[in-house]
Amino acid sequence: MKTIKSTGVALPTERIILGIDPGTTVMGFGVLLEEGLKVTLLEAGAIRFPAQDDHTLKLRAIFRQTTAIIEKHHPDELAIEAQFFGKNVQSMLKLGRAQGVAIAAALQHDIAITEYAPKRVKQSITGNGNATKEQVAAMLLSILGVKELPDSTDATDALAVAVCHHFSRNSIARPKAKSGTSRGSSDWGSFVRNNPERIK
Amino acid sequence: MKTIKSTGVALPTERIILGIDPGTTVMGFGVLLEEGLKVTLLEAGAIRFPAQDDHTLKLRAIFRQTTAIIEKHHPDELAIEAQFFGKNVQSMLKLGRAQGVAIAAALQHDIAITEYAPKRVKQSITGNGNATKEQVAAMLLSILGVKELPDSTDATDALAVAVCHHFSRNSIARPKAKSGTSRGSSDWGSFVRNNPERIK
Repeated sequence: MKTIKSTGVALPTERIILGIDPGTTVMGFGVLLEEGLKVTLLEAGAIRFPAQDDHTLKLRAIFRQTTAIIEKHHPDELAIEAQFFGKNVQSMLKLGRAQGVAIAAALQHDIAITEYAPKRVKQSITGNGNATKEQVAAMLLSILGVKELPDSTDATDALAVAVCHHFSRNSIARPKAKSGTSRGSSDWGSFVRNNPERIK
Repeated sequence: MKTIKSTGVALPTERIILGIDPGTTVMGFGVLLEEGLKVTLLEAGAIRFPAQDDHTLKLRAIFRQTTAIIEKHHPDELAIEAQFFGKNVQSMLKLGRAQGVAIAAALQHDIAITEYAPKRVKQSITGNGNATKEQVAAMLLSILGVKELPDSTDATDALAVAVCHHFSRNSIARPKAKSGTSRGSSDWGSFVRNNPERIK
């Protein structure tokens, strides 16, 4: 959905980014509006699949819910957090299927798909691949200019991968301390100090 | 697709069963027409995905090819061979995704999905959960009344799961020696001997 506003001035192209974190019991999602280098939170949340449902019913729910989100927001891009390590082969097969049906919902709508490892997402947002969930959440608040995030780590993870994709698409340097200040420190605190214009 | 032929006599309901064996490099498929207890082979084959393609392109190919087969044959049921053990978690995640997008193509068309473990498929067709691929293939020739099968083990596996589903739906007893003859023997040879009417 490329929208050029008809103001007579060439405005940055708007793009919608959908981030998802599909699991077998919960699927987090986050939808961002990207206008040039600015991102705005449109919607984020988590959909929980009843534990008693059989696996095929769950896959059906994931497919339908992902399709519903896509048809509501018409994203141009899908960013997916892809865990590549798990407890055992059976749980990974089920996780793969959950991701597969969510990916298929995007394929069906010809949406470009990019996946990011969790470490890459944390690195992109906080400058530290081993950042805590709290550090990621705090950075998201400042990047998105919101006062609170959905009360679900799955939703926050999905938003994080969407923001990571936004940074990656626009080749925005990952937050890190500027040279000359606290060398090697790349926590979100230093990003806030060094990038006051990004904090609303 | 329930088709009742207008001959004035109530004929058995026709149903189309699609069997698939979705992998990350090859996807086997087999399509059967079920008329009561009789099954006829409509199409079987294997689709190979180029090794150099990236994973998302492969998933796109699996989704599109599965959708194309579904739109060609309009199956009522999807039977899927589901491997639950693999080499490692990464390969299982990729396999799960491949299965997930194929399942999603069926979900999109509201097709009922049933999955069977490989052992169950072999058991159903030969009466022996540890049958060799050759034994399964030989039984498929006789069950389907054909002289040859596609030259691909993936296609044969997909046909096998479709036939297994046909047996399972119709509660057809798995081939085994009748009581009084070679007790405990349940290989396909004894099935052929004991079920001459099934051999064409």
